[in-house]
Formats: sequence, structure tokens, C-alpha cells
Amino acid sequence: MKIVIIGCGAAGIVASHVIKKINPDADVTIIGREKSIFIRCSAPYALAGIDSLGKCEKPAAMVTGTGARLVHDEAVAVDVKSSAVKTKSKSFDYDSLIFATGARPFLLPIGGIGLKNVFTLRTADDAKKMSKALKGSHDVVIIGGGMIGVETASLLSDRFRVTIVEMLPSLFPLSYDKEYSKQVEYLLSKNGVKVLLGKPVAKLTGDKKVNAVHVARRKIKADVVLVAAGIRAETDLAKRSGIKTGKFGIETDKHMKTNIKGVYAVGDCAQTFSMLTGKPVQSGLVTTAVVQAKVAGMNVTGMDATFDGVLNSSVTQIFDRSLGRVGLTEEQARLEKIKYKVGTSETLDKYDTQPGAKPLKTKLIFDHGGMVIGAQVIGSGHIVSGIINMISFAIQRKSTVKGLLKLKYAAHPELTPLPFADPVVLACEAVD
Amino acid sequence: MKIVIIGCGAAGIVASHVIKKINPDADVTIIGREKSIFIRCSAPYALAGIDSLGKCEKPAAMVTGTGARLVHDEAVAVDVKSSAVKTKSKSFDYDSLIFATGARPFLLPIGGIGLKNVFTLRTADDAKKMSKALKGSHDVVIIGGGMIGVETASLLSDRFRVTIVEMLPSLFPLSYDKEYSKQVEYLLSKNGVKVLLGKPVAKLTGDKKVNAVHVARRKIKADVVLVAAGIRAETDLAKRSGIKTGKFGIETDKHMKTNIKGVYAVGDCAQTFSMLTGKPVQSGLVTTAVVQAKVAGMNVTGMDATFDGVLNSSVTQIFDRSLGRVGLTEEQARLEKIKYKVGTSETLDKYDTQPGAKPLKTKLIFDHGGMVIGAQVIGSGHIVSGIINMISFAIQRKSTVKGLLKLKYAAHPELTPLPFADPVVLACEAVD
Repeated sequence: MKIVIIGCGAAGIVASHVIKKINPDADVTIIGREKSIFIRCSAPYALAGIDSLGKCEKPAAMVTGTGARLVHDEAVAVDVKSSAVKTKSKSFDYDSLIFATGARPFLLPIGGIGLKNVFTLRTADDAKKMSKALKGSHDVVIIGGGMIGVETASLLSDRFRVTIVEMLPSLFPLSYDKEYSKQVEYLLSKNGVKVLLGKPVAKLTGDKKVNAVHVARRKIKADVVLVAAGIRAETDLAKRSGIKTGKFGIETDKHMKTNIKGVYAVGDCAQTFSMLTGKPVQSGLVTTAVVQAKVAGMNVTGMDATFDGVLNSSVTQIFDRSLGRVGLTEEQARLEKIKYKVGTSETLDKYDTQPGAKPLKTKLIFDHGGMVIGAQVIGSGHIVSGIINMISFAIQRKSTVKGLLKLKYAAHPELTPLPFADPVVLACEAVD
Repeated sequence: MKIVIIGCGAAGIVASHVIKKINPDADVTIIGREKSIFIRCSAPYALAGIDSLGKCEKPAAMVTGTGARLVHDEAVAVDVKSSAVKTKSKSFDYDSLIFATGARPFLLPIGGIGLKNVFTLRTADDAKKMSKALKGSHDVVIIGGGMIGVETASLLSDRFRVTIVEMLPSLFPLSYDKEYSKQVEYLLSKNGVKVLLGKPVAKLTGDKKVNAVHVARRKIKADVVLVAAGIRAETDLAKRSGIKTGKFGIETDKHMKTNIKGVYAVGDCAQTFSMLTGKPVQSGLVTTAVVQAKVAGMNVTGMDATFDGVLNSSVTQIFDRSLGRVGLTEEQARLEKIKYKVGTSETLDKYDTQPGAKPLKTKLIFDHGGMVIGAQVIGSGHIVSGIINMISFAIQRKSTVKGLLKLKYAAHPELTPLPFADPVVLACEAVD
């Protein structure tokens, strides 16, 4: 069984692992143009000097350790009729082909975007170059108020003057409702980060090197600019090969199969769909890539696995606070014309008897029938990921307010809120 | 509607809150012999000087704030025929009566148990007296290797020479399997706590004040002794009143009703049952008391609520590690003659790129049909409570390996394990 995987990010690597685990004899080749295996989520921490860039780059053994072959090259053509992938120098036959080509950062079509010291943050190279440019810099402008932009701003703000520019009227415009994004705005401002909302960047200017970002009539000083304005699925090769693509990437069915027999697509290059609405969406999350890669890997080896859509569960850290979200926001529910109910709670992450107890704010969203369809949480540390994972599972299990009210949670002075203040149960009790 | 509640612990207070919330006009009286409202779980932290005892005692307004009446007195008789509770000085008629009399620490029937400086740790008074005795003391012996004993040992060990004596052959004999309790033993030893297992205490000796604990042929120096050898439901008054009791406390049905019409029992005084085996068990957890109190409170007001048993979800902190458990252990499954399967995982609580990532070990237990029936986790901080709560919910929802494998978890360098190393999913993948 010959399997070729194009792309050596999380999706490609996990697919190779699953295939070799199920069938150690499978002949697996990963073609990766990336120079190294990069733990991308850690890039903001590397920029801030918290993680070493070295630790974020993993050895090739992460792929080859299972017996898969790693080819550092770029796939330039796929002949789906003869089932072969061509790189610049070679050709690889396949029985099954997995596209895991990822995505590329969206570069705004504005003047000056090609100036020096304008970066995106996706590859190890990006991180290294930006790290170098930050040395001796003072003013950093981040274009894009999503996860990467806000996280990077919070991590760089103690060493640089940082400004975030977001075209839409709120931070995290696609993932959190306003009362949560307002809190993030407040956190950023309190820590000296300037936040400009609702205004697009007009242009970047500078003499070879960027020195200013122009937003409406303002000119913001910039030694370094990070463009974190979303990603676009890397679909060029697929399109050229006759593989069908949609608005958000390569089209697949629930088995992660494309329109061409024997060809799969997983991770950021693949369009996915919402588990809740069934509609096509972009995920862009590594956790989606991992699960899709497992599904494709299993199917390639002859098993029958399906992917049932995304809830886009995610967590992020901003200064000493963590935020998490899953499913639909109120705004999204409104757009989907879903009649919804909301329950909120405010409690502490420890008993109020303990030193260091911090506020924990939770919002649960339910559909008209009482089924939970979304959650947003702001707190500190791991408690937020715990709640988000639990609500993810509750959504997957089609749980209702009544079911969640019965949650048999644990209580401990240092490790949970007070015994009568579980954030999920309190939010359920408060449903309007 | 006249409601009398006997007992002013978590069970009694929550019952009063629920009743007053549903029916603000209800005439609610709580008879409490306790001098104060005490957050008992925090007592070990108060002994260690981490929490102030003052913070662990809550004002009477916690009860009276809703309009309920708080009577500091002891209920000495219940006349179920005339529906009246008698205290030493007064009589209170009721339409509904809720027993929330709690439990008392089990005092070993051994010589010297009445000596000075031998304590239990249940009430604010207990904590105050023991706190006082600890001043100037050096050697502390804790009898009982359960949650309270081990937690107190870990919290006192930096100021005292601490020894734990447990009669059974392992710590946490009723809640964790050996590979977990062994880790706790190791943690205690590493931090200078002596652990004696498998030997009962023969007697305590001293001249008025305890000075030694005798275990087999050993004599352990002791300035202070804490007896944390379990609790017994406080059922004397109930028994005297003709209310039926079982091995573990007052017998109730799923509505928390006793055998006497209009009389309920909730919390530590009530015998409960395992959600998984249906058999009578002791819970002793405040979280059980809270949920039972809500059920009784709702039923008293004319609603129809039921309690569906316990999973005894709990978490604890020992030095810088947290432990959590829910459902059945392997040992309990064996005793119940349940054919079970196990899946374990070892990962980190952050990405391996982050400084301060700590090990996280998870065990999931499934029945023969693949339904999850238990979990044990050791890690640090809130991540453990998050996993335990999620698995509690999964057990309640009768989830299987297959369902949990599909968990749509979140990933973040600082807030979760690596994206392909979710502890629950990894453990599911490892099921034998």
C-alpha cells in the first residue's frame, strides 16, 4: 500500500502516524516543503522569549520514527489519472494521496505590504525573522484582532509599544460575543496595548523598512508589523489537479475524501463544516487537523471512519487570563435564525476562603429545545480549558440544560469554585 | 408552608436557599447546633495558615439573607405524628422536615482516645482547638490515610514532623487504585512525611496530653494527633424518631424522602447509592449534599425532582500535585464482578515547548460494553478537576470509548497538552 501525503504540518504528520500504527507495512511518503516541523501555536511564546525557537522545531524523527519517508521538496503537480505526485525533481506513485497542504496567512492587498519588517507568523522561518527584527525595535503594530494577533500583543507588550488594528468593530469578531471581547479590550488597554477597532489599514509606508501603519487619518509608528488577518487554505495544487474546492478550501465528504477517488484532504487546506449548522466553515485549528488526519488515515488503511464537523473549541491566554469558546456565539445563533436562550454565571476559580482565587465568568447558549450549542468562558489557567472541553462533549452528546444541571462535579478549596458554585450548573440555573 | 431543617451545614443551607428561591413566602426555619457556618473543606488550609479561620466561617446572613430563620439550638426530639421538632427550649411545627444533621468523625475505640491534643477536624471549633495546639508542637500523627488525612499531612509537613498511620495496606484505600496511591506515598515520603500502612493503631498514651501513638510494636512521638478515620452519619435523632436508617445513614428514596411522610434527609446523614452499581454507599462529599439538598428543596415546594446516585467525583491537592477520581476503581470493578477494560495515558499539562509543563497521568476504566465507569488522574492544578468533571458527565451520559474518542477538545501551548496528546483521547486510544 503506497500512500503519499503532501504537507508536513500537524495534519500530515498525524495521518502518517495513524497509518503506520494501523499498518506498519504501509509505504508512507510525506512530501514537505517546510524546512522543519514547527509547533506553530507556540510561535507567539517564542517571539516573547518564553519558549526557545529550538524547542518549537521538532526533529524529522517525529515523522521518520514510524518508518515513514520524509522528502523535503515541493509537490508541483498531481496526475490523478496515473496516480502520481510530481515534485521538482521526482515522481511518486500512490494508491492513496492525502492533501495536507495547510494554509497561508492572508496578506492584505494594500500598499507597502512588501516592505521589510512586515511579517506573518506561520512557519519557523517567519518566527525567526520576526524575532530578529524585534531586537532593538520599539513599536510593533499587529494587523488583526483574532487569536494570534491578540495573543502576540499580550506577550510582547512588556517589551514593546504594541498597537492592534482590527477592521471589524470588535476583537475576536468571529469567535466571542461583545461582552467577552470587551473584557479583552480592557485587559489589553490596562496593560498598555493600543486597540484600534472598526477601521481597515489603508497602507504601510516606510523607506525599504516599514515605519508607519496608516489607519484612516492616523499614522501609527511601526518598527515591526505583524499581519495576522486570517488564513487562506493552500489549494493551488489541488485546483490545478482537478480537485474540487469550495469557499474555504478543498471539498471533502465525511470520510475526508475529495471528488477524486483515492485522494483525501485534511487540516487547514480542507473546507470543513459546522457540527451544529452543517454549513461550510473554516476551522484553522490544529485540533481539527489532528482529528481529520486520524479519520483519513484510518480510511486509507481500509477502516471506515467519519468526521462529524467542527465546534471550533479553542482556548487562549491573554496576560494572566484565559479565554475559551466552543460552538456558536449569540451573534452566530442570531445569524442562523436559531431561537436561543442564555445562562451566565460569575464565580471564583477557588473557594473564596483561598488566597489567589480569581474570577471566572461563564456563558452557555442553548437552542429553543434546551440543547447546549455554545459556551464562552473567561478565567485563569486550566479551569477554562476544562469547561470548554466538557461543554464540547456536551454539545457532541446533544445534552440539554436539564442534563447539565445534573452534572456530578467535584469540589475542592484550591481546585474548584465553592461546592454550590460550579460555573456550569450555576449558568444552567440562570437560563432565562 | 412551614419547613424545618435540622442542621446548618452545606446540605441544610442549600435546601433553605432553594426553597426560598422557588417560594419566597415559605416559612423556613433552620435549627443548627453548630456555633457557626463553617467551610469544612478549607479546614486543612486553615490549620496550615494558608486560609484564615475567619474566612472559613461564614456569617449567619448566608442563611438569614433569604428570609429563612436560623435557630441556634439542638433538636432533641421529632414527633412525626404531630409534625413537630422539639429543641431544648422550644417546639417547631412543620409541614415538611428535612434532616441535614451531617456526620461525626469516627473515633477509634482505643485507649487514650480521650487524651488532650487528640483532635478530629470537622467543625470550626475543632480547627481552632487544633490550630492552637499546633503552636509550639513538633510531632503530628495523623490517623487515617484518606482525603483529609493526606491533605492535612501535605499541608503541615513543612512546619511539623508528620506521620500518617493507615490501617489498610494503601493510602486512599477506597478511592484510588494502587498505582495512584503509591505515587501519593512517594510524594509524602519525598517531602518528609512518614507513612505507616497496613497496621492499626493500638493505643494512644500520654500524661493527660497525648505524647505517643502505638502502632504494632512501634511507639511514635506525638504532640498532636488528628483522627481522620472516616465519618459516621449522624442518625441518633432520626432513629429515636422512628425514621428508618441503613448501614450508611438515613434511608431515602430518589426524592430524598424517608419512610415518614413529609420527612426528607440530605447530605452526610443520608445513606446514598452508587449511580453505577445501585448499591448503598456513603458519600461524605459536600457536592453530594448540595445536589441532594436541591432535590429535597424542590420536592418540598411541590416540584418533582429526583437524585440519581453518586459517582463520588473528587479532587484533592497534595503538595504541588492534584489528584482526581470518579466512579469505580479497578479494585471496585473487580469486587462488583464487572468485566472491565482500562486505557491509560501519560502526557504533559502544557505543550512540551512551554516552561513549567508538568506530567499528567490519566486512567479511564470501561465496562465490557465500552461504557466509561471510572477515571483517576494525577497532574497539577485545575486540569485535573476539568478532566474529572468531564468524565463524570460522560459517565452520567453513558458514554463509550467510541464517543470519548471523538471529543472535540481545545489546544493551546500554555493551557492544554499538545494537540495530539489530549489525555482522554490518548487513554481511549490505549484501551486494551
